[in-house]
Amino acid sequence: MVTTHENGACIPPDPQSSRAQGEQDASQANKLSKLHLCTATEIRELVYKERVTVQEYAQALIGRFNQRNHEVKAWAHYDKNTILAEAKRLDDLPPAARGPLHGVAVGIKDVLLTKDMPTRYNSRINEDDGNAAADADAVAILRTAGALILGKTATTEFAAKVEGGSCCNPRSLQHTPGGSSSGSAAAVGDNQVPIALGTQTGGSIIRPGAFNGLYAFKPTWGLVSTEGVGRFSTTCDTVGFFARTLDDLALLAKVYRLDFDYSQPPEPFSIQGASIAFVKTSVWDQAGSGTRKAWEKARSLLADAGAVIQDFDLPEPFQKCREWRETIVAGEARSAFLSKFVESQPKLHASLQALVQNKHDPSRRDMLEAYDGVARLRPQWDEIARRYDVVVTPSTVDDAPKGLWDTGSAVFNVVWTILHAPTLNVPGFFGEHGLPIGLTVVGPRYGDMQLLLAGKTIGELFERKGGI
Amino acid sequence: MVTTHENGACIPPDPQSSRAQGEQDASQANKLSKLHLCTATEIRELVYKERVTVQEYAQALIGRFNQRNHEVKAWAHYDKNTILAEAKRLDDLPPAARGPLHGVAVGIKDVLLTKDMPTRYNSRINEDDGNAAADADAVAILRTAGALILGKTATTEFAAKVEGGSCCNPRSLQHTPGGSSSGSAAAVGDNQVPIALGTQTGGSIIRPGAFNGLYAFKPTWGLVSTEGVGRFSTTCDTVGFFARTLDDLALLAKVYRLDFDYSQPPEPFSIQGASIAFVKTSVWDQAGSGTRKAWEKARSLLADAGAVIQDFDLPEPFQKCREWRETIVAGEARSAFLSKFVESQPKLHASLQALVQNKHDPSRRDMLEAYDGVARLRPQWDEIARRYDVVVTPSTVDDAPKGLWDTGSAVFNVVWTILHAPTLNVPGFFGEHGLPIGLTVVGPRYGDMQLLLAGKTIGELFERKGGI
Repeated sequence: MVTTHENGACIPPDPQSSRAQGEQDASQANKLSKLHLCTATEIRELVYKERVTVQEYAQALIGRFNQRNHEVKAWAHYDKNTILAEAKRLDDLPPAARGPLHGVAVGIKDVLLTKDMPTRYNSRINEDDGNAAADADAVAILRTAGALILGKTATTEFAAKVEGGSCCNPRSLQHTPGGSSSGSAAAVGDNQVPIALGTQTGGSIIRPGAFNGLYAFKPTWGLVSTEGVGRFSTTCDTVGFFARTLDDLALLAKVYRLDFDYSQPPEPFSIQGASIAFVKTSVWDQAGSGTRKAWEKARSLLADAGAVIQDFDLPEPFQKCREWRETIVAGEARSAFLSKFVESQPKLHASLQALVQNKHDPSRRDMLEAYDGVARLRPQWDEIARRYDVVVTPSTVDDAPKGLWDTGSAVFNVVWTILHAPTLNVPGFFGEHGLPIGLTVVGPRYGDMQLLLAGKTIGELFERKGGI
Repeated sequence: MVTTHENGACIPPDPQSSRAQGEQDASQANKLSKLHLCTATEIRELVYKERVTVQEYAQALIGRFNQRNHEVKAWAHYDKNTILAEAKRLDDLPPAARGPLHGVAVGIKDVLLTKDMPTRYNSRINEDDGNAAADADAVAILRTAGALILGKTATTEFAAKVEGGSCCNPRSLQHTPGGSSSGSAAAVGDNQVPIALGTQTGGSIIRPGAFNGLYAFKPTWGLVSTEGVGRFSTTCDTVGFFARTLDDLALLAKVYRLDFDYSQPPEPFSIQGASIAFVKTSVWDQAGSGTRKAWEKARSLLADAGAVIQDFDLPEPFQKCREWRETIVAGEARSAFLSKFVESQPKLHASLQALVQNKHDPSRRDMLEAYDGVARLRPQWDEIARRYDVVVTPSTVDDAPKGLWDTGSAVFNVVWTILHAPTLNVPGFFGEHGLPIGLTVVGPRYGDMQLLLAGKTIGELFERKGGI
């Protein structure tokens, strides 16, 4: 049995308990030092019940940062004074003014604007930029909900490149944490923060989520505003979340109101009797041994638990999705990076310069074929997805590659991104190097809440019985 | 014959001319006072040839502002010191560092971020906001090209409401300038600035363009980055341009690289022999007498000039486009305004509050039907548009309504917006009150450059022979 995290280990003793005061004080000090292990749901409860102040919690997180940052390097910006001032502001709020995430720390990928921290996109163009006048929408929603914005997390350049930086996989510093949401995944995986925001245009949430053994969620396109997020591709850019438990993702889903238009709660999900499709996709031959073993293990675990497993191949037109997505992203990036190109060409990554400079590729005809092609397939995917209770598909080629330069392949993620489908990385498996491997569950567009529900049950099984 | 603007009247005498120096000085002073009448193309030339400095030009524009602002109220932010400092900076640039719009003044709708001016969206939420850390992409491109960012122009709240503010139609102060890009259209129409940026989610470029007798262009969706533009609807929000001449729009089209993927220049357009479709659309019964008269006049002018006119009705499924657009915009606005709602609910317009609060309408099913429905029609529209050299359709119900509260109806614009098609208001006609009426020419997606070329020739005809 392998558990990926020590959830629950963080909780300090109840001051009402009957133990002797001395024993309690010592235990309290000891346990405060483990507050960084709390999930969002746990710390929210502790702060709400006034067993921990936000400032105590912030100190615990800073302690964890001090221990770990020189190795993991998950943060692009982390300012202890800002954190403590913000923690004090939150502690000073009267209870009636406290929001649903009061005191919960979050990491913000450094491509989302923040009004109390700079936003630098890991770009030489923005290395001297100051704070934004306003938070990105997705950040403002967290801040208003009472979250403690802890810092900005490492990203690849404009979240548009595969090349990693100095951020490491906290489980093995010689391995990539994945990208482009490298720091968000590494910080959550390393218990430096319980939840974090990321963005995905190809596989930038699911891939680092899988490499760090996290629950990582890319909602249906359009459900979370991308105002204030560095633009790469309007059609693909999606804001999503990292957490160590599904409950924490469910908490965020409520804050972002992904649960709109549910007259009743989603149907309960039970593996017993569930119809579960396994979709290898046309790039299955790229899957490494870790992913293949996780795949077989998952099948047998779910089958043993009473699920009806069905292999399903996407119809042939879906094979065009990867190429179409690449065309759309390249064409949209041409507009997205034009301002950077004309302002600061030499400071922009050569491949992004090339996108802007290329007048003929993708052509206007290519763009229209891609836009209209994927638009035709989206409702077809929804129809397929609705035939099953849940669909399982690979998250990554294998566990995290060695080296920091290559953040890994998004080949198993891009189809779902361009289809606008919600995807969730479910952890629980491990590859040959002992590094995590996850599988993706994917739903029809707007099936977000149902997907989270299924992901919770499936995740409990995988975390309990997955392993190598 | 009616001419809408005094283009060309602005040009100061050539200092190389043979007139006596005294005469020349007096004439020079007199003509400098008319610099505000210059188009972008004209002022660019004058500054390039060093016949006018950017500071002289800025003074002339400020003079015009001083004369007119108390009546027209086109500006949300206009700071003379900022303008003059920026003009000096531009004059001080060595020639090699000057861009293609060097010295050309532009107005920026107050929903696009600017680093030297506040951005306030005509919202009580943002009334104390400071400058942004960075320009919106569309602004940065202009600034880098050497444009003189003159000020921020009046908008309706978040460019998401129909209710106007205090900005008037410069031709008749009791009439609306249209909206939501009210100030951009009014300022260009009133010769306070030659060109301006606006945004359209329904009809917010074409409608004010028509009401102010301007060439107003909404490019194909996605061609101009909307990063740094206040979000309303990702699927519909489009940045576009106002000018008094087609040449100025063509200048902007080059700066924004709308001419990508043209191996050769667009085919020359001649009215003689051109196949021109007139599309009344299913809401033609809402057209008032002014629009009906302009319609008939345009038909006969084009026919007289040798065009082959064909009436064309959009196939029945296109009638769903208005409803589908409304569904998509409402659903996307729910996400777009969530952060404002949770931060500052009472300061948000009641109807935008209601959008966020409504959990069930539009439903998830409505959204998918709308997304997939319009996606199916986009290539159908392209195919129809390509059958003709150009398609003509109404811009507005009639000329500008009386009163400032109602900025007018977008009923003739929304279909093209949701279809992502490029549209251009061509001026030249006038309604019963002597206020302008325009007609829209519309093309297939990515037909932008061809559309501008056709619009130039057609506009010359309409401006010369349109009238009442």
